[in-house]
Amino acid sequence: MSRNNHHVVIVGGGFAGLSAARALKRAPCRVTLIDRRNFHLFQPLLYQVATGSLSPANIASPLRKVLKSQANADVLLGEVQAFDPVAGRVILSDGTVSYDTLVVAAGMRNHYFGHDEWEAVSPGLKTVEDATEIRRRIFLAFEAAEREPDPQRVEALLTFVVVGAGPTGVELVGALSEIAHDTLKGNFRHIDPDKARILLLEGSPRVLSMFPEDLSHKAAAQLERRGIELMTSTFVTHIAPGSVTVRQGERVSSIPTRTVIWAAGVAPSPLAAELRRAFGAELDSRGRVKVQPDCSLAGHPEVLVIGDMASFSHRGGDPLPGMAPVASQQGRYVGRLVRRRLGARPCPPFRYFDAGSMAVIGRGSAVAHVFSLRFGGRLAWLTWLLIHLMYIVEYGNRVLIFLQWAFNYFTFNRAARLITGKAPFPLTVGDDPPRGSDLRSS
Amino acid sequence: MSRNNHHVVIVGGGFAGLSAARALKRAPCRVTLIDRRNFHLFQPLLYQVATGSLSPANIASPLRKVLKSQANADVLLGEVQAFDPVAGRVILSDGTVSYDTLVVAAGMRNHYFGHDEWEAVSPGLKTVEDATEIRRRIFLAFEAAEREPDPQRVEALLTFVVVGAGPTGVELVGALSEIAHDTLKGNFRHIDPDKARILLLEGSPRVLSMFPEDLSHKAAAQLERRGIELMTSTFVTHIAPGSVTVRQGERVSSIPTRTVIWAAGVAPSPLAAELRRAFGAELDSRGRVKVQPDCSLAGHPEVLVIGDMASFSHRGGDPLPGMAPVASQQGRYVGRLVRRRLGARPCPPFRYFDAGSMAVIGRGSAVAHVFSLRFGGRLAWLTWLLIHLMYIVEYGNRVLIFLQWAFNYFTFNRAARLITGKAPFPLTVGDDPPRGSDLRSS
Repeated sequence: MSRNNHHVVIVGGGFAGLSAARALKRAPCRVTLIDRRNFHLFQPLLYQVATGSLSPANIASPLRKVLKSQANADVLLGEVQAFDPVAGRVILSDGTVSYDTLVVAAGMRNHYFGHDEWEAVSPGLKTVEDATEIRRRIFLAFEAAEREPDPQRVEALLTFVVVGAGPTGVELVGALSEIAHDTLKGNFRHIDPDKARILLLEGSPRVLSMFPEDLSHKAAAQLERRGIELMTSTFVTHIAPGSVTVRQGERVSSIPTRTVIWAAGVAPSPLAAELRRAFGAELDSRGRVKVQPDCSLAGHPEVLVIGDMASFSHRGGDPLPGMAPVASQQGRYVGRLVRRRLGARPCPPFRYFDAGSMAVIGRGSAVAHVFSLRFGGRLAWLTWLLIHLMYIVEYGNRVLIFLQWAFNYFTFNRAARLITGKAPFPLTVGDDPPRGSDLRSS
Repeated sequence: MSRNNHHVVIVGGGFAGLSAARALKRAPCRVTLIDRRNFHLFQPLLYQVATGSLSPANIASPLRKVLKSQANADVLLGEVQAFDPVAGRVILSDGTVSYDTLVVAAGMRNHYFGHDEWEAVSPGLKTVEDATEIRRRIFLAFEAAEREPDPQRVEALLTFVVVGAGPTGVELVGALSEIAHDTLKGNFRHIDPDKARILLLEGSPRVLSMFPEDLSHKAAAQLERRGIELMTSTFVTHIAPGSVTVRQGERVSSIPTRTVIWAAGVAPSPLAAELRRAFGAELDSRGRVKVQPDCSLAGHPEVLVIGDMASFSHRGGDPLPGMAPVASQQGRYVGRLVRRRLGARPCPPFRYFDAGSMAVIGRGSAVAHVFSLRFGGRLAWLTWLLIHLMYIVEYGNRVLIFLQWAFNYFTFNRAARLITGKAPFPLTVGDDPPRGSDLRSS
């Protein structure tokens, strides 16, 4: 490897890519970070944007600002379409970039298991635009219910279905329950938001199935205490405007609803398949890119794949889960790997330091599995809060987030509950508009 | 008038409409406030959203929250299309609402003087979506410049043109100058944002022409000190992707630019023309609805028109300007008028209490005309800050805005500088994409 002019190109400014870029701060190389967006998104809090607690800017850090003082780092707003292994180039939709080392950390996108037509009815939660669209649908459903004279249609409008009981699904129903029971209390004159039904559908037999069983049960109990209807071992067979069809064992039933949120599946960025095409990378059953113990592609030590889209088998076991801590640690690792390679020194394989995981359910309630401790309730929630604040502070200026949270907590308010985007008139949520009669006769 | 069941329908939740609703809090009547959005927008700070200082939610208050504890008030999300004077009904796109008293406060929209085709190239600043679109264009222009190898095209990308030197135009160029000279300092590797050109075009001979002449001169001097190029007595004859054509006297010239923001004209909501059709209302030369001394329509005492769309001739003089204080005072006035009418008591005509006006130019600089005092600079800026904070606090929870401002002020940061919305790839700003070559050769 030639020093100084060695060019590391990083694709993706999420936790993995940004950590890698920062870990190369003092390395004798040039770094180019390519992302489609001009900001790093603190994805673990995106559900709070979707439910009106935070604004997008609260959880976004401009990439240029984060890397401003890192002289060897260059940010490029661009969309990567392909790789050219022969010329050693990344091909964008509008240009090319040559690399010596290529780090691909392009993350995941929503995945509907072959039912892409469900996406329009049932948005997932991956981008800022996803979040504001979900926010729009949630608050618009209450608005439409307020105007709807037909009780059956009011019921469908006040039924919210979240598909998938992983951390995101659990966080979403928890927040929905707070919206219905606290935030919107007294805001309407013709409906009682307290009567909203919130359903959480899950194919496996328990919620948060990646947690130990006792924590799943704790979480389920906390959810039910908040009035959330859990439907486990339940498979979605159809989603249409106005209803979700589910199968439980042999029983098929239909749930009338105007708001369905998809939290059931993600798949790697299309760049995973492109890595297979270009470099012969092997993909695992979920489409993630299998990597060597040093995060490189077999036969291509110059190509490193990290973060959610990588399938890293830890000590021969199951692939590591797609979580921010894994991504950040892999980012720091490849930074170290490149520095060592530039100094012609060997580097031990990547080791994941597992501090545990947690999921938040709502005000003062969460479950945590930290080291070998398992706990729930208020303590877990406070731990969650502290850890997230620590992470956020790392990425910038987010004292304000804490204040916004404190404010929301004490006032039960959600200041960011704006309905923005396309005009909703005539007011339709789902298939048909409310009936036009005198809407406010006394 | 019948008591208790008397129904006041207010169209528009801006300063005028919302003040009217609140002023009817203890009145023996029902109040229905209709708005297309579920929030009141603090429009005087919208330029701070467009320039990445604040998030939309920072300047929006959910209407339902503001009116939550007002038992006689009902909020309706809806779009008014017409009025039916015979049946006494407001006609929405999806229903109708009967009124006894009708208050119309639908405000203004962008107006391009017969050149509607300019709108796509040169967005105005009226809605939250306008603001995030302008924000997107500003920050995308810098991103595209960073990637552009051709120096002439870089120059066009770094040229920002604001059309119209009223308060909004002046505020926008002031903020643009801070973005270029402070916020983005050191953020780029291939361009120097400091070299951005910021132009302010104005048809009349001076900026802020509604202010006394000495304040206009003060403002112009402050703008020029910030490197803003003022072009007064300058008329825009054409706006196309890539350039603005202007005429100064006999001289016609073209300014290559990729970012044009329209702050030159607003016109009343289409509901002004609908009031003419339905009630025979008279419109003034700018299309605003002429009202009686009690804000009612001639021949229709039950129809009150207030806020920016009303043409209220104060003591026989020029119509009052479209400003938040006028709108708020008119709102409170019609609240009082309706209460008096319901008590069968007479009400004196509306009187505007003119506390003055001000325009902010940037960090620590503004001009103010308060009572008979005229002043500029830091004192004017502090006055502006205090008054706006007072107003914002009135509408809710906005301690956070103050903290965000304080934070921005001391760090020169703009945390809300997100490029969101439609994907910009291949990267185009204006007519054509940057040339695709190796974008990061060493």
